[in-house]
Amino acid sequence: MKAKIIITPKKAVLDPQGKTVQTALDHLGYRGVTGVHVGKYLEIDLAPGTDRAAAQKALDAAAHQFLSNPVIEDYRLEIVD
Amino acid sequence: MKAKIIITPKKAVLDPQGKTVQTALDHLGYRGVTGVHVGKYLEIDLAPGTDRAAAQKALDAAAHQFLSNPVIEDYRLEIVD
Repeated sequence: MKAKIIITPKKAVLDPQGKTVQTALDHLGYRGVTGVHVGKYLEIDLAPGTDRAAAQKALDAAAHQFLSNPVIEDYRLEIVD
Repeated sequence: MKAKIIITPKKAVLDPQGKTVQTALDHLGYRGVTGVHVGKYLEIDLAPGTDRAAAQKALDAAAHQFLSNPVIEDYRLEIVD
């Protein structure tokens, strides 16, 4: 079982890294890109037999408390088999 | 239309950031975590009416050539509506 956490800057927050990638793509000839958001991706391997609901709850708390910065970032947590 | 690119270190490559998160989770009492991999996440907004196949091809090239480092990183590209 795995947990996937995607952490992205909130839409209202400046994303200079995303802006840089967007400019680079444009300079390299990739047209049609209207925006780029750069975030973090965490893949967490869970021991076999871990309780899904408990893992979801614990990792949701971890993501909120110290993996992301809730003031400027959003996160999505997904548990997959 | 959006493209999502997930860039992760190859399994054989040392991932000190992942190791640090794993240790931190353990210290904070989250048991059952057997591994953590930290990567990058890019969300690319595409102009409406962009050709899906062409975007897939162009972004695949971009991901391979300069968004990721193919020596030490893997990437997954997904185009969603």
